[in-house]
Amino acid sequence: MLKNDLLLRTLNGETVERPPIWLMRQAGRILPQYRKVRASLDGFVALVKNPDLAAEVTIQPVDELDVDAAIIFSDILVIPECMGLHYELIEKKGPFFPTTIHTRADIEKLDSGKQAAERLDYVYQALANTSQRLDGRVPLIGFAGAPWTLMCYMIEGQGSKTFSKAKSFLYREPAASELLLDKLTETIIEYLKLKIANGAQVLQVFDSWSGVLDQKLYKKFMIPRLRQIREAITEVPVILFSKGAWFALDEIAALKPNAIGLDWNIEPSYARSIVGDHQVVQGNLDPCKLYGSVADLELSVEEMIKSFGRNHIVNLGHGVYPDTPLDHVKHFVSFVKGYRY
Amino acid sequence: MLKNDLLLRTLNGETVERPPIWLMRQAGRILPQYRKVRASLDGFVALVKNPDLAAEVTIQPVDELDVDAAIIFSDILVIPECMGLHYELIEKKGPFFPTTIHTRADIEKLDSGKQAAERLDYVYQALANTSQRLDGRVPLIGFAGAPWTLMCYMIEGQGSKTFSKAKSFLYREPAASELLLDKLTETIIEYLKLKIANGAQVLQVFDSWSGVLDQKLYKKFMIPRLRQIREAITEVPVILFSKGAWFALDEIAALKPNAIGLDWNIEPSYARSIVGDHQVVQGNLDPCKLYGSVADLELSVEEMIKSFGRNHIVNLGHGVYPDTPLDHVKHFVSFVKGYRY
Repeated sequence: MLKNDLLLRTLNGETVERPPIWLMRQAGRILPQYRKVRASLDGFVALVKNPDLAAEVTIQPVDELDVDAAIIFSDILVIPECMGLHYELIEKKGPFFPTTIHTRADIEKLDSGKQAAERLDYVYQALANTSQRLDGRVPLIGFAGAPWTLMCYMIEGQGSKTFSKAKSFLYREPAASELLLDKLTETIIEYLKLKIANGAQVLQVFDSWSGVLDQKLYKKFMIPRLRQIREAITEVPVILFSKGAWFALDEIAALKPNAIGLDWNIEPSYARSIVGDHQVVQGNLDPCKLYGSVADLELSVEEMIKSFGRNHIVNLGHGVYPDTPLDHVKHFVSFVKGYRY
Repeated sequence: MLKNDLLLRTLNGETVERPPIWLMRQAGRILPQYRKVRASLDGFVALVKNPDLAAEVTIQPVDELDVDAAIIFSDILVIPECMGLHYELIEKKGPFFPTTIHTRADIEKLDSGKQAAERLDYVYQALANTSQRLDGRVPLIGFAGAPWTLMCYMIEGQGSKTFSKAKSFLYREPAASELLLDKLTETIIEYLKLKIANGAQVLQVFDSWSGVLDQKLYKKFMIPRLRQIREAITEVPVILFSKGAWFALDEIAALKPNAIGLDWNIEPSYARSIVGDHQVVQGNLDPCKLYGSVADLELSVEEMIKSFGRNHIVNLGHGVYPDTPLDHVKHFVSFVKGYRY
């Protein structure tokens, strides 16, 4: 039994007293406790692969920030890893894949589906550990990267402002792209099912790089895969967050996710005009607003909550930046927790 | 007298036989001729500061690609430079400012307006040289970065995916931000006036990083400065390109620029629904489409031209990427030049 089930009630469309709040990247460098754990290990990936410590850092923001949900500490790139594409995380630079996808043959060699997803035992153990240690204080969110975002890294090999290599692969090799996206989709579904089996009570799918695509590509290649994922997950609520995909918001809403994540480019009134008042939405405070004064922050948060109206989960439009003043983050959470509709 | 005045007639709202075409970054690494000139010099900035060679590379795409306009080879960061903030261009990394803006006092120290703009003699000489050597074959476009995009680099000191430092400055120091934006606006206006005096026949203002802002910030801080610039330039047509600012497209259209640049996130039908059929628009092919097959490229270009209808300048939604197959770029240009409404 959950002691705080506000997020689940909101995702189920129930009438609630205030919006729930959690923050993307809440389990991370924003917290001194996290930085201490992280410093004790050799690299970010070592923490991802350590179920005990991953559980510990997952619970830290529940203790320290008093948010309404925990999100498992992990990384979207464990999926390429379990499909056979090893990656590293280079300090201050980001992810790096020594081997990348160049041809259809490279894609054919990748493992996929259950066989691949089952390799991620450390993630499932971290979920099970967290679930036990959380003891129902708040719901536990599991997550995965969307097929396109994972494809970006598998082809590009690292972060990029344009992801022009991955996009050019879509244009040059549409059939091979479909194969890669299908293998990713299959694996993501099995992975999410195993997350549910190990304690995830809500799932979020992150399409972090949808904003580099145009509407036609997104509708042709990506929406069908998001639909497959959405339809495969019937056990728990699903949140879809396609960052930058304002141009496909109608198609995303048509997938009927339990909530749609929004970034700060999208005004609440615009979002409501597309998705309606009953669709639960999540977001969308600009994380940079946490650098400003607390008075301005309160005004912005109140305005955001009022503009979205009910059926809203408060969050940022992107992960919290590591150097954000911690007291502002705490103030943000407590302000939302004190709010009443 | 211009031999090819198609761009100017389009910008003046005349009925033309086909859309004009030019490409952002057409004078650049896409051309072997450019790479040869560039290799003969010590760095990109050396080329920017060399009026003879800048004129030469400006004309190269007119010769090689047969585009309908030349755009002066230069850099948006000459404005911070002339205001007293020196920058370098680091190979494969991008711009780097050894000193950045931290406080209001840093902003107060900056030069601005005519006094600053007059220092950029090498740009005006490059324009005059180009103008003479072009001999009226096609119109010559001058350009400047918009105040926000320049502010991004002056505070951040380099490129960034989020420009969170620059954004946080807007939130933390709104009054100092206004001062910086005003000093930039003043300087940009004087700079553009001097460009006109030296041969620029069209001006484009690039707000490359508008997409990191939300609608409220863009309307509050940036639209008023774009209005000032737009209203100050009465001598030649002005193209405004605020990349990623779909959420402010109505406000941009209200400034009545001679053309509005669009990126590929914006579907032609969406753009037309906001700006109307009479507003000239420019764009918006995804540069990655040039990596695909020529047959697909033709289909996309024809569809784009038909969807925008008349009052359209063909261009990409971003600068052409350096590794694009040159024959595809040439095919793109010749296909558009062979098109008839």
